Amino acid sequence: FCTQGSESDLTTTLLQMCVDRAFIAPGEFNSWALRHGKSCSYGPLGEELKKNILEQWWNSVTRSKTQVFGINSLHHVPNDKGGLKLVDVSAIGQFISNESLSKTQILDRLQQLVHHSSSVRTNLLQGALVQYLPSLELVNRKLPFGLAETGTCYQHSDQSIGGVGRTSELTEASLVWFCSPRTSSQWLDHWTRQRLKWWQKFALSPSDFSSSDVEEGELLDGASRGVQVTYRFPWGSEALETLWNQGDSELLKTHGNAKTKLQCKDGRKLVVPHVIAVKGNVDWGLLAYLFNALQLEKKVLSKQRIHQRKVLKLHPNLAPVKVALDMGRGATIELRQVCEGLLTELLEADISVWPGYLETLPQSLEQLQSKYDEMGVLFSVMISESTLENGLLLVRNRDTTIRETMHISEVKKYLQKYISANV
Amino acid sequence: FCTQGSESDLTTTLLQMCVDRAFIAPGEFNSWALRHGKSCSYGPLGEELKKNILEQWWNSVTRSKTQVFGINSLHHVPNDKGGLKLVDVSAIGQFISNESLSKTQILDRLQQLVHHSSSVRTNLLQGALVQYLPSLELVNRKLPFGLAETGTCYQHSDQSIGGVGRTSELTEASLVWFCSPRTSSQWLDHWTRQRLKWWQKFALSPSDFSSSDVEEGELLDGASRGVQVTYRFPWGSEALETLWNQGDSELLKTHGNAKTKLQCKDGRKLVVPHVIAVKGNVDWGLLAYLFNALQLEKKVLSKQRIHQRKVLKLHPNLAPVKVALDMGRGATIELRQVCEGLLTELLEADISVWPGYLETLPQSLEQLQSKYDEMGVLFSVMISESTLENGLLLVRNRDTTIRETMHISEVKKYLQKYISANV
Repeated sequence: FCTQGSESDLTTTLLQMCVDRAFIAPGEFNSWALRHGKSCSYGPLGEELKKNILEQWWNSVTRSKTQVFGINSLHHVPNDKGGLKLVDVSAIGQFISNESLSKTQILDRLQQLVHHSSSVRTNLLQGALVQYLPSLELVNRKLPFGLAETGTCYQHSDQSIGGVGRTSELTEASLVWFCSPRTSSQWLDHWTRQRLKWWQKFALSPSDFSSSDVEEGELLDGASRGVQVTYRFPWGSEALETLWNQGDSELLKTHGNAKTKLQCKDGRKLVVPHVIAVKGNVDWGLLAYLFNALQLEKKVLSKQRIHQRKVLKLHPNLAPVKVALDMGRGATIELRQVCEGLLTELLEADISVWPGYLETLPQSLEQLQSKYDEMGVLFSVMISESTLENGLLLVRNRDTTIRETMHISEVKKYLQKYISANV
Repeated sequence: FCTQGSESDLTTTLLQMCVDRAFIAPGEFNSWALRHGKSCSYGPLGEELKKNILEQWWNSVTRSKTQVFGINSLHHVPNDKGGLKLVDVSAIGQFISNESLSKTQILDRLQQLVHHSSSVRTNLLQGALVQYLPSLELVNRKLPFGLAETGTCYQHSDQSIGGVGRTSELTEASLVWFCSPRTSSQWLDHWTRQRLKWWQKFALSPSDFSSSDVEEGELLDGASRGVQVTYRFPWGSEALETLWNQGDSELLKTHGNAKTKLQCKDGRKLVVPHVIAVKGNVDWGLLAYLFNALQLEKKVLSKQRIHQRKVLKLHPNLAPVKVALDMGRGATIELRQVCEGLLTELLEADISVWPGYLETLPQSLEQLQSKYDEMGVLFSVMISESTLENGLLLVRNRDTTIRETMHISEVKKYLQKYISANV
């Protein structure tokens, strides 16, 4: 008796759950942004989920056998020509209040102000192209190598978005790969396979993730080929990551066509490398994993009572909370001490814990479980009077809903094994 | 015969080394920013160092026994009144080129444009104050708890900075702690102790880090007390982290004085919490650890030859590269395979490796060692012909400069032990 519900229902359910369970902060803009692959204000669970995705992305790209260095470039680009600039609006306020200025004077000052203001970055490619030159020394001018970066980029739209503003942010994950022109198409294939496999690795149903070529009419300027990794959302497919074979044009443009400076060794020949730009949108990725993980299960309890179980079956590596710790009735002070001891032990082992035992409102076990299911908590542990007697406690598995009795000294090892087995 | 050199020498040496060894990207702005506690374009080593600092900060704050949640707020704040706004300057271009507009029309459109543009955040406090309300549900209105966030904030100065622009960025690490007014001064003391201890934990000479009260004249509006954790740079002390007891004024202001909504349980009483704001500048922190770790050692080799050894003795947890792998002369293909095998093994164990064996330029062992010393590489491993015969290799320790012979199968465990022993 497992049904998925209609598609718009599913979207509404998920977005509401994200607010209720602290994945995102409340507010119209945040829900709109989450639904459209933009950054929103993430609450505690969303922050942790995003951090986990970014960490996995980073490890998969910088710890492959290929040579990839991380960089960290500035958010603002001095004296760029871009559309969105950081302007000190108090200066504009001064023009407006100073009535003695003529129209020409105002326009003149405006032009100066705009000229001296910095642009904000719209992607991470430029930063990597700039750092290409100093990186050459690290690799002794030997190809191939890559520069990776993750961070916030800005977008501007002509129309007001979500009824709020015209600016939006997104969290980009970028790999810029420099390789010999001879091998660039093989490298594009290599990274496409690697990236698709990565996205599918953390999926409950991997078939919702797929890759396809960007149509010729939609290629970026100077790009000879583009590939997208897409996710099938209820409303259609969206690109989570795009890979471009950009040739050498952007690199040459960034460095004023200084070919000699840019050349690298390709065997015995010197070549200006081609650029494969891999550009992921982590906000879309986060939403894709949420949709992919959400399961709605209807259980008919009796003629009158139908219970809908909502479970967020996030991958063990991505789940923001691995374990929730709760305590039953009984000797409060002692139970709490046991909880705190286990909490410390788990945190030290790098396992994120939800300190449910701190809650003072009495909740039924059923309410507690459905809350944890919606939070995607992998295991919930119940510490009770009998734990004080014999060290035994109950561990419930989110996915199987089975409760196992376990000795408190075994919990850490059991969880570590479970999480690492799923890497 | 260990001398520290004059103070300005030390600064020049360090800044140059940061460019040479890929801690920061070249360029006047980057050196200026690094020297002034602002974000610059970090190169591969700087990126990794910064990531390590941020990770340690995060763990120390979110994994203490206290209840701290991570959040991730937006970089731009819709419709704020701030001085630095994200303005679409193409719209300004249109005013300038449209000659038929009158002065009043221009001013009118400018005012509209400014009004509809978003501000960028100048600190992380506001984001946490906004998320205070939805977080109340997570903790069942029980104090104390905290909200942590790290990320880029923007600054504007009236004067051009570093000869480049008027905007700068910094990487802030923020903990906003909500507690009962009754206990706020104890909590300020608690966090001050915790933070100072944290900074000193990774220091070579902990006494360069200290804490002191902010003088009364320099207190923030509404703050009853402020404490700074400072580092003694060659030119004087700078604040790495500041802790403010801000009372309830900012929280009330953010939520329109809606006291009832903001109240929490303090035992049986309902109170509006006081806010302890802990605000770290990670860019200053990074520079502090670099200065703290740099040791200049003069060695008189003979009357004519004096060798100055520069070593960056970064803490094992912070060092951007833990191991460098190199190979001696001999059967290139086989040696390389051994290097790749060890590389994979170490990367899988989460140990960052510098693949020195990929370099094709012949360097003397001495040159290689001084390069790794300046990069702060903890250990360098040399794989040679004899490794192929009997599995033995040489491991050199950065701090003792002692070379040990070790079997290749023991390297991973040895390094893991060394790094974790220093946590």
